[in-house]
Amino acid sequence: MALFNRVTIVGLGLIGGSLGMAARRKHLARVVIGVSRRPATLRRAKRLGAIDIGTTDFRRAVRDADLVVLATPVEDIAPLAERAAALMRPGSMLTDVGSTKAAIVNRLERTLPRGIAFVGGHPIAGSEQQGIEAADPHLFDGAVCVLTKTGRTKRAALLRVRRLWASLVDQVVIMNPRQHDRLLARTSHLPHLVACALIQATQVAPLPRAPRSFLDMTRIAKSPPELWREIVFSNRAELLAAMQRFDRQWRTLRACLTSQDRRGLQRMLARAQMKRNALDS
Amino acid sequence: MALFNRVTIVGLGLIGGSLGMAARRKHLARVVIGVSRRPATLRRAKRLGAIDIGTTDFRRAVRDADLVVLATPVEDIAPLAERAAALMRPGSMLTDVGSTKAAIVNRLERTLPRGIAFVGGHPIAGSEQQGIEAADPHLFDGAVCVLTKTGRTKRAALLRVRRLWASLVDQVVIMNPRQHDRLLARTSHLPHLVACALIQATQVAPLPRAPRSFLDMTRIAKSPPELWREIVFSNRAELLAAMQRFDRQWRTLRACLTSQDRRGLQRMLARAQMKRNALDS
Repeated sequence: MALFNRVTIVGLGLIGGSLGMAARRKHLARVVIGVSRRPATLRRAKRLGAIDIGTTDFRRAVRDADLVVLATPVEDIAPLAERAAALMRPGSMLTDVGSTKAAIVNRLERTLPRGIAFVGGHPIAGSEQQGIEAADPHLFDGAVCVLTKTGRTKRAALLRVRRLWASLVDQVVIMNPRQHDRLLARTSHLPHLVACALIQATQVAPLPRAPRSFLDMTRIAKSPPELWREIVFSNRAELLAAMQRFDRQWRTLRACLTSQDRRGLQRMLARAQMKRNALDS
Repeated sequence: MALFNRVTIVGLGLIGGSLGMAARRKHLARVVIGVSRRPATLRRAKRLGAIDIGTTDFRRAVRDADLVVLATPVEDIAPLAERAAALMRPGSMLTDVGSTKAAIVNRLERTLPRGIAFVGGHPIAGSEQQGIEAADPHLFDGAVCVLTKTGRTKRAALLRVRRLWASLVDQVVIMNPRQHDRLLARTSHLPHLVACALIQATQVAPLPRAPRSFLDMTRIAKSPPELWREIVFSNRAELLAAMQRFDRQWRTLRACLTSQDRRGLQRMLARAQMKRNALDS
């Protein structure tokens, strides 16, 4: 038996499209409905097997859904969740896939009607690409999905959304929104800004191409600027704190160089090596 | 006909071993001799097909070589080149694969005897791995190799070393040592320190694993600390200048965040995206 009867995905980009593909392949819903403002996106999503039914009619798409998944740019999630909740049947559920959680969860816990359960979600997968064309049913293979839990999270809804993601990713982790945002500031949003600063500081020519390591380190700078601007601002305080953590390490490294402290630099590089090696195991 | 009669590789690590394998496969030398202090390394190099003959006897190995390639850690290159040159026949050649060039080239142009031609070299290939076990005959496929040219570089030697590398890499680029060091400070040594600072600033747990982009961005922090300490110090001035270039971008990004300048951040991200996209073409 399918986990859900009707799942509606709002926003058919890289994540929404991939979720539709994966959910359909694994028969997690009897029917997957996709909503987009652009008919061309709906046609592509249908052709790629990401949805069973596509519509530009938001009201019709969410009205009878058991689960609505918001997979739009981060700044649109809360407003659309509120619009959806006003149309949905009591007892149905809302979740999202936004890259930051505190702003969204805090707001929706104040504004959503009682009958509609909301569970914040963030599958940590993706790439520098965007759009339905880049969608991939295997995008979530081996990934981690974070779901948020607060004093107001409804246990039954959390368990069902967890079952959905547990079928798609390697591991589902539950934490509070603030902890999520702090971890993502450090492991995702900080690296993003670092990659941007690095590419801007660098000039490759007259080398005919950049070293592979440089390309790997700057790949995420190819991500859509509009999406990332909003991710960054929706996690501003945690990101500024993460930047400060980086700065402390950076200053120490520089001090080793300016004061010709070979042993100090050796120590820094050795610690970094050890810490990085541990991430592989 | 082989390009060289006897090529001797001093140092059978990742680069020296890979060079031996590739040169033997392409029959660029009638015989490839490998020198290492450790007999176990020589045995492995022999078994992997990286050398025809292995010896721990430096004198015997370099005496009759047409070309000696120094593939040791960067701080050992100039002293070993001087030792080799004192033993080599007039008319023979020396080259190296060191990651920085100005210190080595400047010193050797003062100290080497007239009859021995030196050409600085740097195949921009490699990985975070080290040692003969990681050697790979295809390491240089598609890579760029920089050779240095100064007022004292002997044209005939440069052309022959260029022919060697042209058989192994995708493109050979000739520039002066200082230009090389500046470019590598920006595209390799700066990113290395950035990766180290990033991994040190970050904490992944309780996430069960780091996002793929984070792993890609910090992979080079796994490189051997001793090797990199010396690379960094041998290019200290250029690296400090590159760090300053990074700092300017970093401060601008932070200012966008602190002053809530969405348009400014958008501009920075869009420029970074454009610059990074250009590197793929």
